[in-house]
Amino acid sequence: MSTTPAFKRLPRAVREQQMLDAAVRVFSRRGFHAASMDEIADDAGISKPMVYAYLGAKEEVFIACLHREGTRLMEAIAAVVDPDLPPDEQLWRGLRAFFGFVGAHRDGWAVLYRQARGEQPFAGQLAQMRTRMVEVVAGMLGRATAAEGREVPATELDVMAYALVGATESLADWLADHPEADPERTATRMMNVAWLGAAELLRGNTWHPSG
Amino acid sequence: MSTTPAFKRLPRAVREQQMLDAAVRVFSRRGFHAASMDEIADDAGISKPMVYAYLGAKEEVFIACLHREGTRLMEAIAAVVDPDLPPDEQLWRGLRAFFGFVGAHRDGWAVLYRQARGEQPFAGQLAQMRTRMVEVVAGMLGRATAAEGREVPATELDVMAYALVGATESLADWLADHPEADPERTATRMMNVAWLGAAELLRGNTWHPSG
Repeated sequence: MSTTPAFKRLPRAVREQQMLDAAVRVFSRRGFHAASMDEIADDAGISKPMVYAYLGAKEEVFIACLHREGTRLMEAIAAVVDPDLPPDEQLWRGLRAFFGFVGAHRDGWAVLYRQARGEQPFAGQLAQMRTRMVEVVAGMLGRATAAEGREVPATELDVMAYALVGATESLADWLADHPEADPERTATRMMNVAWLGAAELLRGNTWHPSG
Repeated sequence: MSTTPAFKRLPRAVREQQMLDAAVRVFSRRGFHAASMDEIADDAGISKPMVYAYLGAKEEVFIACLHREGTRLMEAIAAVVDPDLPPDEQLWRGLRAFFGFVGAHRDGWAVLYRQARGEQPFAGQLAQMRTRMVEVVAGMLGRATAAEGREVPATELDVMAYALVGATESLADWLADHPEADPERTATRMMNVAWLGAAELLRGNTWHPSG
């Protein structure tokens, strides 16, 4: 489809990234509804028709931002998690990468994520990302229990993964609101809250109501 | 401001609740943007001008729904949590009430909560509710550690509370999507994931990176 000659491909990709950087800043500042294409073009130092030509209308620009941020986040985590490591080490590395990413992209996380969460059609994209995260965590927990010779029903692993992912997202929001907080320390806290309990469960210990 | 005579107050309150019930159903079915005042009036069996007269415009109706559901949820939890009980019993009762509420109001939770989360100005209301929840949980954890003679910095209690509240919200979403799932069982699962870890922390055990 593109009529851009091959030698222009790199500049085009670079310009697109610059536009996306500008869009993330503007959506972060204004929120999706109040953000204008004028401001995005201004911030990127480019004409508005060019932004439309490269990325499309505001909704498409937002989806492109979400997609890029989401892909970067998943890649940051995938790069450090090695399935051959012990499960707590995998979880620790994943959490450290996750909170490191959020700490380095506070504005982007806070607004893109909060904006996207409730709003159609963006909510669907985010739900997909979360589903993938839950699958990864449930898979890791499943391998960890299998390695200890215990079989845990898939639903239980899913539920545990949902809880861990939810707790992690909640702490990411906290981190985004606390610029003075250290991402690495936040990852350790999440390990403290989540892993100690998960480790008990993986050992087969459970909590029962006393009544 | 109201010109309604005193003897009409009860019917008015009842009619308002019926309208809110209808509104929750319609917002659940359609989402905030696609929901129409016509459909809400239809569902409530009342004229559209009456809905406006009682509750205001669509945004105000949505806020009234959020406020009612939020208040009911908080009241359901407050009714069962007794600060004199042991902390795991308090957490258990709170979680059981919470998941019981979500299980009984799946549509309302799924759509009101998901809709409200990302969208201004509703996001602010929900953030307030969450902040109150975090305060309650952090307070409970603080009393539990103080009772054991340990002092935990407020930030650490906040962070633990954020993680617990986030995990709980995530499982509520899971429950809303799984009509076959039992709310009580879900509460037990949350205790298993969260409390075992929290209990370790309250005993002063922590997780440390090995590297």
